[in-house]
Amino acid sequence: MNLLLLEEADFIAADRVVLADRRFVHMQDVHGVAVGDTLRVGRINGLMGLATVQRLERHEAELHVSFDQAPPAKLPLTLVLAVPRPKMLRRLFQTVATLGVPRLILLNSYKVEKSFWQTPFLQPDVIRENLILGLEQARDTVLPEVIIEKRFKPFVEDRLPAIAEGTLGLVGHPGDYPACPRAVEQAVTLAIGPEGGWIPYEVDLLGKAGLAPVQLGARILRVETAVTALLSRIF
Amino acid sequence: MNLLLLEEADFIAADRVVLADRRFVHMQDVHGVAVGDTLRVGRINGLMGLATVQRLERHEAELHVSFDQAPPAKLPLTLVLAVPRPKMLRRLFQTVATLGVPRLILLNSYKVEKSFWQTPFLQPDVIRENLILGLEQARDTVLPEVIIEKRFKPFVEDRLPAIAEGTLGLVGHPGDYPACPRAVEQAVTLAIGPEGGWIPYEVDLLGKAGLAPVQLGARILRVETAVTALLSRIF
Repeated sequence: MNLLLLEEADFIAADRVVLADRRFVHMQDVHGVAVGDTLRVGRINGLMGLATVQRLERHEAELHVSFDQAPPAKLPLTLVLAVPRPKMLRRLFQTVATLGVPRLILLNSYKVEKSFWQTPFLQPDVIRENLILGLEQARDTVLPEVIIEKRFKPFVEDRLPAIAEGTLGLVGHPGDYPACPRAVEQAVTLAIGPEGGWIPYEVDLLGKAGLAPVQLGARILRVETAVTALLSRIF
Repeated sequence: MNLLLLEEADFIAADRVVLADRRFVHMQDVHGVAVGDTLRVGRINGLMGLATVQRLERHEAELHVSFDQAPPAKLPLTLVLAVPRPKMLRRLFQTVATLGVPRLILLNSYKVEKSFWQTPFLQPDVIRENLILGLEQARDTVLPEVIIEKRFKPFVEDRLPAIAEGTLGLVGHPGDYPACPRAVEQAVTLAIGPEGGWIPYEVDLLGKAGLAPVQLGARILRVETAVTALLSRIF
């Protein structure tokens, strides 16, 4: 945790918060804070600044806080991801938030197993919790928007063209395609497929919505590694 | 597992293997193979090819194998990493193998906790097991070399200059440094610090060995994400 993120409910005054949950435990166990110590803090969806520990008790801490710094810029990106297997989802939400993705659309695809949609990791509160862990890692405060699209065709035909319009539209897909572009200066819409990849019908439909296939070499990457590698190459 | 990696001990003839371990279970549970099915296989540190299931019993399978394809090229890179916390190590070995790093040097650093060196994840057989998982993911056969350097100063002063000579030497380090270069055509020696970064003395010493600091933006990345992002940017 490189930044302590504060919720509205933590505030007992405009410049004072009380913490008693995971963040309090982390402050003590990992940072070993004492009264008078300062910590980096951020207000969810707001500014970042510093906190000073005012009071430290067995079950809670009171901090004096001030905010003066804008969070880092997000990437100019909409990321469309075929839903990965549940054990990958938690870390993926963290990584997406850490990397500065402002909007994530989780999409169905032919090779997404139906059972993947049943996972508790897709519950809104679990998603939010993992996004916050990712923001704390990166030192950012702004929660990415997460949109769930359970039907491939209506999303890609009816809504994706408007999202992709005016952006560079890309589909990460192994095969005989151009290499993923580098140092792109414009906004991007990027779609990344499931394990086993998109099927040809899906690549065609994504193409009609304005997304052109690009590849990243012969190696097959896990989805989280592919997301990081593609974003680091593109931006 | 996108490639089934075979050890010398699996062979009962030049073109025949018998499997009864994790790989046998995976073939059945994940791939649901039957007699006559084909699978992609590779020989550790050798060629890749195809296997045909000849015999399938309750506890073992016999495959006919042939090899005709070279594994993908490795990156022209020596990666020097401050030892991360144990829970990150297993995935890190997998990721390093997946990305095509041919040589990994795990190094001590001021901010590496002494206890990190005690982890069973640094045992040679556990390292090898995780490297193999990473190779199977990427479809590669060649095990990266892993070197353990428990003393920072003698390694950086006495051995690193010869490793870095003739390569582009880089240290990933947050701060007011040039941005990490893109699409480098030459061999690279890249050092990545621990959580909390290198201390100034270490950056100085790495600089004297020929490694110049570069940064990757304001966001603080987990080590595994940083490795993927830096390699995807550089190559």
